[in-house]
Amino acid sequence: MLGFALFGAGRIGCMHAANIAAHPRCRLVRVFDVVPAAAAAVVERYGGRIAHSVDEALADPEVEAVLIASSTDTHVDLIARAARARKAILCEKPIDLDMARVEACWEAIKDLNPVIQIGFNRRFDPSFEKLHRELREGRLGGLRQLIITSRDPDIPSVEYMRGAGGLLRDMTIHDFDMARFLLPEEPVEVTCFASALIDPRVAELGDHDTAMVLLRTASGIQVCINNYRRAVYGYDQRIEAVCEHGVIVAGNRRATTLEYWSREATEAKEPLLHFFVERYREAYVRELDAFLAAVLDGRSPPVSFEDGRRALRLADAAYESLRSGRTVLLEEP
Amino acid sequence: MLGFALFGAGRIGCMHAANIAAHPRCRLVRVFDVVPAAAAAVVERYGGRIAHSVDEALADPEVEAVLIASSTDTHVDLIARAARARKAILCEKPIDLDMARVEACWEAIKDLNPVIQIGFNRRFDPSFEKLHRELREGRLGGLRQLIITSRDPDIPSVEYMRGAGGLLRDMTIHDFDMARFLLPEEPVEVTCFASALIDPRVAELGDHDTAMVLLRTASGIQVCINNYRRAVYGYDQRIEAVCEHGVIVAGNRRATTLEYWSREATEAKEPLLHFFVERYREAYVRELDAFLAAVLDGRSPPVSFEDGRRALRLADAAYESLRSGRTVLLEEP
Amino acid sequence: MLGFALFGAGRIGCMHAANIAAHPRCRLVRVFDVVPAAAAAVVERYGGRIAHSVDEALADPEVEAVLIASSTDTHVDLIARAARARKAILCEKPIDLDMARVEACWEAIKDLNPVIQIGFNRRFDPSFEKLHRELREGRLGGLRQLIITSRDPDIPSVEYMRGAGGLLRDMTIHDFDMARFLLPEEPVEVTCFASALIDPRVAELGDHDTAMVLLRTASGIQVCINNYRRAVYGYDQRIEAVCEHGVIVAGNRRATTLEYWSREATEAKEPLLHFFVERYREAYVRELDAFLAAVLDGRSPPVSFEDGRRALRLADAAYESLRSGRTVLLEEP
Amino acid sequence: MLGFALFGAGRIGCMHAANIAAHPRCRLVRVFDVVPAAAAAVVERYGGRIAHSVDEALADPEVEAVLIASSTDTHVDLIARAARARKAILCEKPIDLDMARVEACWEAIKDLNPVIQIGFNRRFDPSFEKLHRELREGRLGGLRQLIITSRDPDIPSVEYMRGAGGLLRDMTIHDFDMARFLLPEEPVEVTCFASALIDPRVAELGDHDTAMVLLRTASGIQVCINNYRRAVYGYDQRIEAVCEHGVIVAGNRRATTLEYWSREATEAKEPLLHFFVERYREAYVRELDAFLAAVLDGRSPPVSFEDGRRALRLADAAYESLRSGRTVLLEEP
Repeated sequence: MLGFALFGAGRIGCMHAANIAAHPRCRLVRVFDVVPAAAAAVVERYGGRIAHSVDEALADPEVEAVLIASSTDTHVDLIARAARARKAILCEKPIDLDMARVEACWEAIKDLNPVIQIGFNRRFDPSFEKLHRELREGRLGGLRQLIITSRDPDIPSVEYMRGAGGLLRDMTIHDFDMARFLLPEEPVEVTCFASALIDPRVAELGDHDTAMVLLRTASGIQVCINNYRRAVYGYDQRIEAVCEHGVIVAGNRRATTLEYWSREATEAKEPLLHFFVERYREAYVRELDAFLAAVLDGRSPPVSFEDGRRALRLADAAYESLRSGRTVLLEEP
Repeated sequence: MLGFALFGAGRIGCMHAANIAAHPRCRLVRVFDVVPAAAAAVVERYGGRIAHSVDEALADPEVEAVLIASSTDTHVDLIARAARARKAILCEKPIDLDMARVEACWEAIKDLNPVIQIGFNRRFDPSFEKLHRELREGRLGGLRQLIITSRDPDIPSVEYMRGAGGLLRDMTIHDFDMARFLLPEEPVEVTCFASALIDPRVAELGDHDTAMVLLRTASGIQVCINNYRRAVYGYDQRIEAVCEHGVIVAGNRRATTLEYWSREATEAKEPLLHFFVERYREAYVRELDAFLAAVLDGRSPPVSFEDGRRALRLADAAYESLRSGRTVLLEEP
Repeated sequence: MLGFALFGAGRIGCMHAANIAAHPRCRLVRVFDVVPAAAAAVVERYGGRIAHSVDEALADPEVEAVLIASSTDTHVDLIARAARARKAILCEKPIDLDMARVEACWEAIKDLNPVIQIGFNRRFDPSFEKLHRELREGRLGGLRQLIITSRDPDIPSVEYMRGAGGLLRDMTIHDFDMARFLLPEEPVEVTCFASALIDPRVAELGDHDTAMVLLRTASGIQVCINNYRRAVYGYDQRIEAVCEHGVIVAGNRRATTLEYWSREATEAKEPLLHFFVERYREAYVRELDAFLAAVLDGRSPPVSFEDGRRALRLADAAYESLRSGRTVLLEEP
Repeated sequence: MLGFALFGAGRIGCMHAANIAAHPRCRLVRVFDVVPAAAAAVVERYGGRIAHSVDEALADPEVEAVLIASSTDTHVDLIARAARARKAILCEKPIDLDMARVEACWEAIKDLNPVIQIGFNRRFDPSFEKLHRELREGRLGGLRQLIITSRDPDIPSVEYMRGAGGLLRDMTIHDFDMARFLLPEEPVEVTCFASALIDPRVAELGDHDTAMVLLRTASGIQVCINNYRRAVYGYDQRIEAVCEHGVIVAGNRRATTLEYWSREATEAKEPLLHFFVERYREAYVRELDAFLAAVLDGRSPPVSFEDGRRALRLADAAYESLRSGRTVLLEEP
């Protein structure tokens, strides 16, 4: 029963707390949040005790691992402190919005050799994981193109957007990681188109809500990511992999299998599951499984710090392409 | 260029006239209808000349074949006269509503050995025909069950229903023929449930609009036909064949491939093609191809007089089951 | 935390034990099985203690409810004893294979007024439950026809079949309950065709593996159940509800959403989830939720003893139809 | 009955000849091909007479229109000569591979004001045309993104590729036109990734077989075209339009509606229709309808010379992007 300290008791922290509490191999020991009432609510529902500070949580000898679900700007500090306290680390994405801070964090922890896993939850979706396996095993031959469709149900609050580092670092970063997960080699070229079409407040923030990004690997495999931030029909998460001997598509999920046939339409299905908490419920549990297998069974964490760094590198390159109107070459990943 | 006399210039007669006119291997020579203006309209649009009587049409030496699309009660007389005049015969279904008349017709023509084909158009639908071929070739092993879904978009007029012989002889008869087309042996048991649920006028006529019929062959293969006469979403025509090694399904058709994803529904497609003229457009042309191949190339007509008789026999048995509350055994088909 | 005694530690008992152990509102207190090692294995994995007899389990004051998952012939005895011991009862289907014993059981317990729920798990499937709700709310108007497709992935062992009461009491009984769950009124007519087509051992047992059953309600609504016991592509569980203003279909489930497009086929999906443990995993948990809500919150159990009796009544009527070649009328349900 | 001269009796010329012969409003008068036997074969099958030269065809007073289906390098010359001869012109795409020659052609003919229509057949596909109408009518609000999937079943012969102007001018040009057809405003930015991954001979020719192109309009609407030249499962032609209030998808077509369910896969459908002759059969007929409506009824041809020029302009811009690694701005379309 691995003991966890949870940092951050917001929406995503609560979800992780529920998963920790329900998992047979771990338990919640401490919860810290800058809003103590939020921590208290989690403790009441999922067990453990409140920590009044990060240090108090890290000092608890029953805490063997930390789950970092606090605001992005706190991640690198918490990673470094947890690593020094010899805790295993499961940290929500992104590591940080600033590459210099990410790299400094790595310098600070690398000699401590912590067990650390970054929270790219989609890798653990059963369909995407099976797609990954099919591509690795070459069921339909070599990969030629990936089309990643990734659409949120709606734009977040202005407050959220203000601190999120922009669409490409907040939302597309998942797709950059997915592309790297599925590709047999690293992307070396990035080009990007982005617009603010949904709400004038997005443009006022200098942010975007509609984007297309192309990636290309050294051997010429191509990726298109298309992002849109108001899919009124639900959280649209699909991947199409064009291979030598055919195509494999991974699709969406709905709460039920019902279809309606009426005067207006036929085979009409429900809207998609609303957002990541619903769509990736199973993936979050399997992400936790994998982390526990890393800590308790000595396996490698399947999403490394370096994976977190490289996804950010691609987001930065996409912003550079936006600014310059050029395809950005990633000479060194 | 086989010369046709068309008997009957109503909706279905017009459709056949168009197909004859467009086909490279035949042409319209004569058109007869009890309403001369209807015949005139067909002639004006698709060629040929009006016949003022059946005899005039049959006496025309350029007439080598007849297409009988007049009202059902005229079929057996026209078949017999055409056979005596040594014309090839393509006759719309059903041969007649009365088994005694059907059998008398056969007695009258059998020694003349006419080329005769009954208009069970659905056998020529490309999907159903391919399903038939797959079952004959045993791609998924032996057949165990057939589920035939057959729903009209709406009930016909009271006037039409009055002369149509009841749901089972008018609509289900196509499904009886389809079952026989697909089964490897004749059905020997029939049971039927039928109701009038859509419109009180149906019940007033003593007719039905909602039915389920079960058939069973000697070796135990089962068929369910489900009929309904107000499928507001279009003409629903599907078959599911349960076989030893899997299932083959033949589905519906739409005018376009569009799908709509909105707040209310996802993957919503158009209603189905409205009715038989749209759904079986291609099938009617291929039915004519097959008839021309029989007459001009000496092949066997793919739907015989006996096929027409047996479909009626099944409809009669279903009515007998309705009356008696028993499964009807067809000792001799 | 409702304390459960589990009777029966076979496959389905194990599954229930896992659900009880994982549920926040209940726990496993006692496990009894005629094979003590089976009970021991469940206890080791899911907690509680072995009971060396039914009486020992029922005498334990921490046992507040029983889950009966033992062989069918033990159900009525266990129900009666549990009721006398004032335990709440969740009993797997069927209550018994013999109507006289079912009715005697009811006589024995009715004055004790136990909280009792019969395990028709499919009512708790999210798609079927939503279909039920849509029909009750009349989203597409009144119901006219139900087509229930229910196919097992393979025939059970001969040993299992020998004690299972025949296809219609073992497998179709679920579909009879589903029909009753979805219909707005009781079925009053039953007719049935059944064959043994899959394996000669089925015929040797006098059993069937392929069946079609028709039901009809007093107002004329029709139901077709089609059963087949070797769907090599997985556990096929679908319902089509034909309504006044359209059709609602509830479909199957798969482990992933992948689709394959290759030289041979397009949009090819995975086989269906293999069998009931996978297909109805969520339904079994929700069945337990509903039982806990009945016991702990005073709600009505959603599947009553009477529901169990009526499903058996329909199975008996279907066998009567098979024997007599008649439609059986259920004058009194 | 509009009289046509057909220039070019290759595969696509033959298909047009068949459509002309079958159409009630036109007929084939003259056929010219540099290989006289090819012209003779067309004449024998579809009527008309051989022309021994372009001039002979244009001098025939019964020739009122020309259909140009000869090799691309002959198009501008034939257009100019036909315009001077006062014939209506239906010319296969592209007008030419060289923008200077296209513009010179326009200068040569513009004062003659010919009825001229360029053969972007896909605009006449019933599904794409309905998609166009839905977008114009704003059924789901304003357009935000288009994803155009366009994959050929296989690479053409080396000989064909040598003269085809490269993937972007030969294949993608259809998608550029489709983007323009569906967008509410012109694209003003183009960026492109292209690779040769399928066959080494493609790279030896300096050509590509795998491409992704992004377009962007002034208001920020984005388009992704993804092309691949060996879709072993058939000719893959799909469009996804992301709009303010949802998504509309236009999909592929197959010869039948069959689905197979077996141990290996479920809902497996046939491969797609093989290539453009099958997929766009109906579109080619409707293209001819539209041309006839322009010539005979005085309507505007729905695909203008300028449409042909702009599609080529986009292809040229995509090549410029490939060379420069930049997004190319189209200041003036």
